[in-house]
Amino acid sequence: MNHRLNIFCLYFFLSIIANAQEMKWWNPQNSTINAIEGQAWQGEHEGFYDRLPTRAKSIVRPEVWARSKFSSGLTIRFKTNSPTIQIRYKVGGRLTLPTMPAVGASGLDLYAVNGDKFYWCRPATTFGDTIIYKYTGLKPTPSYYEEGLEYKLFLPPYNSILSLEIGVYENRTFMPLSSRDELPIIVYGTSITQGGCASRPGMTWTSILQRKLNKPLINLGFSGNGRLEPEVIQLICELDAAIFILDCLPNLTSETVYDDKKLETLIINAVKDIRDKHPQTPIILTDHDGYSSGFKNAISQPRYHRYYNRVNKVMDKAFAKLKRQGIKDIYHLSFDDIDQLQDGKVDGTHPSDLGMMQIATAYEKIIREILK
Amino acid sequence: MNHRLNIFCLYFFLSIIANAQEMKWWNPQNSTINAIEGQAWQGEHEGFYDRLPTRAKSIVRPEVWARSKFSSGLTIRFKTNSPTIQIRYKVGGRLTLPTMPAVGASGLDLYAVNGDKFYWCRPATTFGDTIIYKYTGLKPTPSYYEEGLEYKLFLPPYNSILSLEIGVYENRTFMPLSSRDELPIIVYGTSITQGGCASRPGMTWTSILQRKLNKPLINLGFSGNGRLEPEVIQLICELDAAIFILDCLPNLTSETVYDDKKLETLIINAVKDIRDKHPQTPIILTDHDGYSSGFKNAISQPRYHRYYNRVNKVMDKAFAKLKRQGIKDIYHLSFDDIDQLQDGKVDGTHPSDLGMMQIATAYEKIIREILK
Repeated sequence: MNHRLNIFCLYFFLSIIANAQEMKWWNPQNSTINAIEGQAWQGEHEGFYDRLPTRAKSIVRPEVWARSKFSSGLTIRFKTNSPTIQIRYKVGGRLTLPTMPAVGASGLDLYAVNGDKFYWCRPATTFGDTIIYKYTGLKPTPSYYEEGLEYKLFLPPYNSILSLEIGVYENRTFMPLSSRDELPIIVYGTSITQGGCASRPGMTWTSILQRKLNKPLINLGFSGNGRLEPEVIQLICELDAAIFILDCLPNLTSETVYDDKKLETLIINAVKDIRDKHPQTPIILTDHDGYSSGFKNAISQPRYHRYYNRVNKVMDKAFAKLKRQGIKDIYHLSFDDIDQLQDGKVDGTHPSDLGMMQIATAYEKIIREILK
Repeated sequence: MNHRLNIFCLYFFLSIIANAQEMKWWNPQNSTINAIEGQAWQGEHEGFYDRLPTRAKSIVRPEVWARSKFSSGLTIRFKTNSPTIQIRYKVGGRLTLPTMPAVGASGLDLYAVNGDKFYWCRPATTFGDTIIYKYTGLKPTPSYYEEGLEYKLFLPPYNSILSLEIGVYENRTFMPLSSRDELPIIVYGTSITQGGCASRPGMTWTSILQRKLNKPLINLGFSGNGRLEPEVIQLICELDAAIFILDCLPNLTSETVYDDKKLETLIINAVKDIRDKHPQTPIILTDHDGYSSGFKNAISQPRYHRYYNRVNKVMDKAFAKLKRQGIKDIYHLSFDDIDQLQDGKVDGTHPSDLGMMQIATAYEKIIREILK
C-alpha cells in the first residue's frame, strides 16, 4: 500500500466518522434566553413563532390574526463551529402558493455573519411532514473550529412554524444569541411587507434591509390586511422603535371602502397615535409602489394606474397636512423614490427578488439619511 | 325609472353581452405562416413546440433531446384589437419545480408591443389539465379598437406544450405575425439559459434580452446538459445568426470529466466549428457567473469558488489562444462583466429575476457594442 493510498484510506475513514457524527439538537422554545429576533411581545404569544400577542386575538380581525401566525421577519441568531448545521421543522399551512414555491413560502435562509458582512449558506432541502434544511461544508478552517461563527436564520414568510430544532455536531460548540437590545425598525404593511413573492425568506425586502443595515427589524406585514387599523396601531404604539414604517397603501386602494377623506383620516390618525406615545421616533410614510399593469400608458388594465395614483395623492396631501400641523420627524418614501420596475413584479402586484431589492434599496437610502 | 337607472341598466346589459361574447380560437399548429419566433429548424420537428429537429433525436444524448421539448424562448407574435385575450393550453410535464412555481416553470407571459416599448399584461390564471391565461381590460380606447396592437407571448421555459390556442372576441380582429426575417441571436447554454429560476417566462435572461434589444433570439439552453458537445455545435452550425453565444461553462465544472485540457479543447473546437461555417458572425464566449455559496471568502461550501474560478481561467486561456490564432469577431463576456450578486440566486446556482436582470444587462451592453 503506497503513501497516496494510505492517505486516501485515512480520508475515507474520517469521512465515515463525519457522516456518522452524532448531532445535538437545540429547540428555541426551551431556551432560557429570548432567542427569536424580530419578534415583538416576546413571551406573550399563543404560538411560539406568532407575531402578535395572544390578547390581540380578540382585538384584531380574524384575518389579521391568521397572518400574525406566519413567521415573516423572525430570525434566530446563534454561534457554532460545527461544519454541518441541520434544521428540522414542521409547518402549519400549505407549503406553496401559486406564485411561491416551497423554498419561498415555507423555506429557510441561513446567512453566516462576519462583522457587517453576510454570507449566504447553501442548503440541501427536503420537504415533507418534517422539512429539513441541511448545511454542510461550513468554513472548514482552523480558526473556524476554534472560534466558531455567528449565523442568522430567516424563518418562512408565508407559513407558521409548529416546532423547530437546530442541530450541530455533538463535539462542536453551539450558542444561541439573544435578540439584540438595539431598538428595532418596526414595519406595518401588506403582503409585500410580509414577503410575497420573494424567492426565499432572505429576499423579502425587510430581510434584505436587515442585512443592509445590520439592525433588528420587526415585520408586521399582514397579507391583504395591512390597513392602518386603529387596533393594530394601538398595539404597535406599545412598542419602542428606532423607526416606525407605515407601508399599508396597497391594501387601501378600494375607493368604495376607503374614499379620499377616510384614507387621509386613517393615515393622519395612525401618525398622531404613534406620535402621542413616541414623541421623537421617526415615522416613515410609504407610497404604493405601483403595479406592473398600471404604469403610465399601460395597455393591460390601465385602471390599475388610478388605484395607486389615487392613494399616493392622498398620501401627499396627508403628509403635507401633518407637516403643516407641526408634526416633526416624519418622512415620506415616495413612488418616485422607490422607482419600482415594470418588470419587478411576479404577478403584477407582488415583487420578485428584483422588485424586493428595489424597495429595500429605497428604504436603505432614506433610513441612512434619517439615522445620520 | 330615472335617467341614471336607465344608464345603469344599459351598462348592465352591455356587460352581459361582453361576458357572453363568443370567442374565436386560433391554433398556431394550423397556421399557414411560421407563427413561432425563436424556433430554429421550423417545420422539421417531432413536436410542434420542440427546439431541435426530429433528426437530432438520434444525434444528441437523450438528456439533451428531452430538454429540447421544453418551449423555452419560443414566442408567438400576433395583432388584435380584442379587449380580452385568452390562451388555453396543455403541457406534457409536471407543473412545478421545487424552486419554480407553476407560473414560472409552466406559465405564460404576454407583453403588448408599442414601437420599441413592451408593456406587461396582467393575467387571471387557472392551472389544471388545461391551463388558462385570461387577459381582460386591454387598452379599451377608440384607437385600439381601430388599429389593434401587437402582442408577444412568451412560452413556458420548463415544460413542453402539447397544444395551445389563442382566443379573442369573435367580432374583433386577430392576425398572427410571422417570425421576423431578421437574423436571430442564438444561445447555446445550460439551465440558466433555459430559464431556471425566473419567476415567469418573460423574466428568463434571454426573454429580458429579447425585449431590451427587440430582436429575435433562439434559446438552446438545456438544463444540466449544455456541454459544448460537438453534435450540438454541428446542429447550431446549420443556422444563420446575428450573433452566436456559447454560455455552457456552468455545466462543465466537473474537473474529473472535463479537466483543463479537455475543457479548453471543447471551447476552441466549438468556436472553430462555428467560424468554419460562419466566417464573420460574432461569437460571444461567456464566463460562469458564479455561485452564491462560492463568492470569495465564502463560509458555506467554499469549494464552489474553485468550480467557477477554474472554468473561467480555462476560458481566459482558450480565448487568448483563439485570438492569437487570428480568429476574429470573438468576444468574451467575463465574470466581472456579469458582476452577479451574491443574492442574485434562488438556490445558490440558478438566478432569480434579480440575477436574470444582471445577466441580461451584461449581454445587452456587449451586444450593443458588437452591433454598433
